[in-house]
Amino acid sequence: MKKKREWAAYVRRVTPYVPGEQPNETDMIKLNTNENPYPPSPSVFEVHRNMDVTDFSLYPELSAGSLTRSLANYHGISDREVFVGVGSDDVLSLAFLTFFNSEKPILFPDITYSFYPVWADVYRISYECMPLRDDFTIEADDYQRENGGIVIANPNAPTSIGMPALEIEKVIRANPGVVVIIDEAYVDFGGETVLPLIKQYDNLLVVRTYSKSRSLAGMRIGYAMGSEGLIQALNDVKESINSYTMNTASIRIGIASLGDEDYFQSTLQKVMDTRKRTKSALEQMGFDVKDSQTNFLFASHRTVAAEEIFEQLKRRHIYVRYFAKERIKDYLRITVGTEVQMDRFLQAVREIIGTF
Amino acid sequence: MKKKREWAAYVRRVTPYVPGEQPNETDMIKLNTNENPYPPSPSVFEVHRNMDVTDFSLYPELSAGSLTRSLANYHGISDREVFVGVGSDDVLSLAFLTFFNSEKPILFPDITYSFYPVWADVYRISYECMPLRDDFTIEADDYQRENGGIVIANPNAPTSIGMPALEIEKVIRANPGVVVIIDEAYVDFGGETVLPLIKQYDNLLVVRTYSKSRSLAGMRIGYAMGSEGLIQALNDVKESINSYTMNTASIRIGIASLGDEDYFQSTLQKVMDTRKRTKSALEQMGFDVKDSQTNFLFASHRTVAAEEIFEQLKRRHIYVRYFAKERIKDYLRITVGTEVQMDRFLQAVREIIGTF
Repeated sequence: MKKKREWAAYVRRVTPYVPGEQPNETDMIKLNTNENPYPPSPSVFEVHRNMDVTDFSLYPELSAGSLTRSLANYHGISDREVFVGVGSDDVLSLAFLTFFNSEKPILFPDITYSFYPVWADVYRISYECMPLRDDFTIEADDYQRENGGIVIANPNAPTSIGMPALEIEKVIRANPGVVVIIDEAYVDFGGETVLPLIKQYDNLLVVRTYSKSRSLAGMRIGYAMGSEGLIQALNDVKESINSYTMNTASIRIGIASLGDEDYFQSTLQKVMDTRKRTKSALEQMGFDVKDSQTNFLFASHRTVAAEEIFEQLKRRHIYVRYFAKERIKDYLRITVGTEVQMDRFLQAVREIIGTF
Repeated sequence: MKKKREWAAYVRRVTPYVPGEQPNETDMIKLNTNENPYPPSPSVFEVHRNMDVTDFSLYPELSAGSLTRSLANYHGISDREVFVGVGSDDVLSLAFLTFFNSEKPILFPDITYSFYPVWADVYRISYECMPLRDDFTIEADDYQRENGGIVIANPNAPTSIGMPALEIEKVIRANPGVVVIIDEAYVDFGGETVLPLIKQYDNLLVVRTYSKSRSLAGMRIGYAMGSEGLIQALNDVKESINSYTMNTASIRIGIASLGDEDYFQSTLQKVMDTRKRTKSALEQMGFDVKDSQTNFLFASHRTVAAEEIFEQLKRRHIYVRYFAKERIKDYLRITVGTEVQMDRFLQAVREIIGTF
């Protein structure tokens, strides 16, 4: 009798982002979502242990104030230049909603973080993709045309390639009338940050995450840094959606992680050392491997199809990422794990390649 | 030389929500944001203590699957009828974005949760406010006109008054072409839920929170229940914004809280007993106090101005909520605390009233 789903006419139509698989096998080697293979800092363990669970009955601190101040202090900027969110995805999507309200299209590379077109779609923002050069580097001159905003991941994903800060500055300088977002999710693994430029350019927003370099993907902490005007605009929109996004545990753990710089640096170094060794080993097996400034490698074998290697690795419970997408369908994105994990990975690849 | 803030033309203009103060004094009595005065369940403490912090280096479970399943099981529905978010504010704002895309105005009461008009503004949704009756109850017949969606808090805030489920059903039945959201943030404190009606009406979305009845405001857990179609639509939009919103700690703590029904019920009972006693005491002092089905009281003194009492309480470090808003500017919203807290509160009010 009743018509079904009459309300469906007014539902927002979207094509959701498809995240990497989250398999859960005890013997698996998970190299598909760019997590850090090392645990969080011992100071995170300590803060967790000493946390007073009674506090969970109260709302968290407004604007995650103590975490914001710790981040400002860590980066040597003002707390009015820092905005904290539930992972960098929260920060980035909110920045799209806040800053990209022009009729002109926003610009980003054709090969980059695949959430950018998804956010543009959900918020009805038009966009144009600028093709990477043949070597997968970004051409700064492409970002001089009229636009409603720009977002560039640096280093870029899934290519792993960094763009020099001076090249990025050209893009920022040429676009004072719009906000330029530089997504530095992977910058700690050897990229060149443009953070110092926020003092010079009030249209530059630099976005970071705890998920990769700080081994805290599970606690969902990301942040943005930029001029006070940008941060105020982000805060206003955020306060119009959800006053309390960061929970008490993530605020305290986020602060703790910043206090242990030695552990942070030594973990980064371990990942970068393993990356170097893994790259060489893959090259010896006939892979073309991009110079990575991230915690993953982007590699294509001269003769064996990437999808084939991907599937055969999966059968061995080794998970890497494969994108069935034009231009990059011959590549695998391989997160850098521990030495032991990469040995097992390399051995498996050797066997798979050997059968062809 | 450089023009300042040229990008500001494309910033989304909003009027942010103003949350209750979050004072932080050791001797304070905080009765202003409807938190639960009792700690979370002992099972929450235990899960926190036994949590493996190493897991924080991995992304949380996709779609907070285990929490979704636990909630489905707890409420006796399918996990495809449950959606979890970062507090009910996250769930509600996402529901506005997902379901309210008609050109027609959405409807909600003139006196209600003050975030509703804020979400409507940020997402450019037009709205009309239906006046409460003089006794602050909601008139179901007001929600029969043409509209693009309906949201009703039941029990309502800040009035504390519940609407009978049969009255709400009239609203749902009359509006099959739009989504009707019933915000049951406070329903555990004696309200009538419409949850059973989700099986009958595919346009009904029921929203709940852990912040009040489960003493977990600090961990930001809210959820929605509705037909599979509604939940799928919410998930699609959510996956277009942020794949991982619930962090690992909140997922595990959310599950733990559900496992301890005895503690939950006894805490609710304590709050309701204290509410009854406090209401009588206030009435004896000359207050008109609404019949509350929530964890707060809405009270107006016959002779002394609410704002005056509010300010004088504040000087004694006792915080209640005052809204400088037409129709309710003579009222205070007072969260029900512990017996000891309410004794101190009542004593302070007695002294303040006595000076007039």
